[in-house]
Amino acid sequence: MGLNSLFSYFIPKDKKFFPLFEQAGENLIEMANLLDRLVNSADPEEKSELTKIINDLEQKGDSLTHKIHLELGKNFITPFDREDIHALANSLDDVADYIYGAAKKIHLYKLYSTTEAMREITTLIVESCEQVHIVLLELKTLKNVRKIAEANIRINSAENKADDIYNNAVAKLFEHEKDAINLIKYKEVLSAMETATDRCEDVSDVFESILVKNA
Amino acid sequence: MGLNSLFSYFIPKDKKFFPLFEQAGENLIEMANLLDRLVNSADPEEKSELTKIINDLEQKGDSLTHKIHLELGKNFITPFDREDIHALANSLDDVADYIYGAAKKIHLYKLYSTTEAMREITTLIVESCEQVHIVLLELKTLKNVRKIAEANIRINSAENKADDIYNNAVAKLFEHEKDAINLIKYKEVLSAMETATDRCEDVSDVFESILVKNA
Amino acid sequence: MGLNSLFSYFIPKDKKFFPLFEQAGENLIEMANLLDRLVNSADPEEKSELTKIINDLEQKGDSLTHKIHLELGKNFITPFDREDIHALANSLDDVADYIYGAAKKIHLYKLYSTTEAMREITTLIVESCEQVHIVLLELKTLKNVRKIAEANIRINSAENKADDIYNNAVAKLFEHEKDAINLIKYKEVLSAMETATDRCEDVSDVFESILVKNA
Repeated sequence: MGLNSLFSYFIPKDKKFFPLFEQAGENLIEMANLLDRLVNSADPEEKSELTKIINDLEQKGDSLTHKIHLELGKNFITPFDREDIHALANSLDDVADYIYGAAKKIHLYKLYSTTEAMREITTLIVESCEQVHIVLLELKTLKNVRKIAEANIRINSAENKADDIYNNAVAKLFEHEKDAINLIKYKEVLSAMETATDRCEDVSDVFESILVKNA
Repeated sequence: MGLNSLFSYFIPKDKKFFPLFEQAGENLIEMANLLDRLVNSADPEEKSELTKIINDLEQKGDSLTHKIHLELGKNFITPFDREDIHALANSLDDVADYIYGAAKKIHLYKLYSTTEAMREITTLIVESCEQVHIVLLELKTLKNVRKIAEANIRINSAENKADDIYNNAVAKLFEHEKDAINLIKYKEVLSAMETATDRCEDVSDVFESILVKNA
Repeated sequence: MGLNSLFSYFIPKDKKFFPLFEQAGENLIEMANLLDRLVNSADPEEKSELTKIINDLEQKGDSLTHKIHLELGKNFITPFDREDIHALANSLDDVADYIYGAAKKIHLYKLYSTTEAMREITTLIVESCEQVHIVLLELKTLKNVRKIAEANIRINSAENKADDIYNNAVAKLFEHEKDAINLIKYKEVLSAMETATDRCEDVSDVFESILVKNA
């Protein structure tokens, strides 16, 4: 082992993991924004194109998760508990999965018209991903605990709002949508969207776990 | 830092977390009992009123979870692993979410008549929450390991029973309910109820994890 | 405490947990193979018989999980983190639950004819369980990290494929199945199957967590 690799082994702990987490956070924001464009677009071709890009970004997210796992295997010293790094990488991956899942279902079920509830939950997904990204940047120093706490509150509040919108939208479908198969399609997409905000809350739980141990 | 707050920092470890966990346990029992009244009531107005009270208690539960997280941030010494306290608070919160979820769906979907399966699973939810509460009281001393083990067995058995009731009820719906939309409504409510017993099993997993490390 | 039990307390760490994990792994392979026979059988009586055997094996799995928990309570020294042993036992149990769940739903919903998608996802469940079993054997020494990593990749890839098959099959159901209740039945079974591969991925996450700490 040369001096260089010896040094790289003991390199200040934030040079390896944080850039990957930041990229994962940016990737989520991009995916959420594309989903937002998708649910606000009336052009089937554009929607199909956006779904493909979201798919590509989901795979980019997979590769970031994999890189974080590889770094965990190579690095003895980590900025916080190995378990938390592992849980954080996986929970970010889950958010990406559900954003892509919502887009994929819209595409596969050929849901050419979107609903108000879909657009509203997507706005909440965008907001949650932005808050997740804010915390990912703060993890480097853990100095601004208040900022992290506020982001966690917003992520939790977005999840609550999404849950309400989901439930009311499904209740409305039950009242007005007489075609059961159509009803199931819309319910499935709304459910994937609502679950994306749930998964952001899981990310926020990992943030809390990291804070509890390190701040 | 005055002497008082210094002492409060090193106060015997069970004065801060256990009262909060006990309250969370009592809150779950109360919510489960209200759901039991709701599924046994034929009066739409009473049902609507009960849903509101369950909603209030769910928010009280949220605030207890938040207090436990705050105490975790303030206390260096905890009665058991910080991760387990964190996981316990979150899993209790999840149980509350699904009890409220079931009530909310009954209300939103305007399910004026309840079924035998709904009443049976609700009885199992009540039983599980009572067992969860028993263990929460035992955590203080961890002396009566047998009592905890028995409660865990009952929680697991309740989950198995709820799962069977759920599956048979859904099979029956598939056979006799010809209105697909109605079928979905009942299936959703039963699923939320069954998931409440699943979440009690998650609580029981945290109990086991605590036992494994401390008993 | 006699000399014998004293020695058994400090017995080389792999004599107690590994045989149980290996049995749990073999049990999963057997369950997956029986599900494979079930979805490839056209004989309702054989299908019903296979469901019963899968049920028995699911209960055998429960008892193995319970034995692992008991060993955790009795043994101070464990081959890897108590939390990981706990999580591994529970996640293997979850896979068994969903394999049995799929068989039970086919039985309860009286789905006499199976579909190509059901058979394909079941093949992936078999493959995932075989990979899980390979890693369970490797955990004893943790020497062949490459073999574990490759199994993890295969489990993840199987989950991705199952997810695609599930989504396409549901999209097809939405297009061609005009009976909403029938559609829900098939969707439920496919979903239980797809979730079995998800739970294998959770097992693989525990493998990664063990590797991260021990390899």
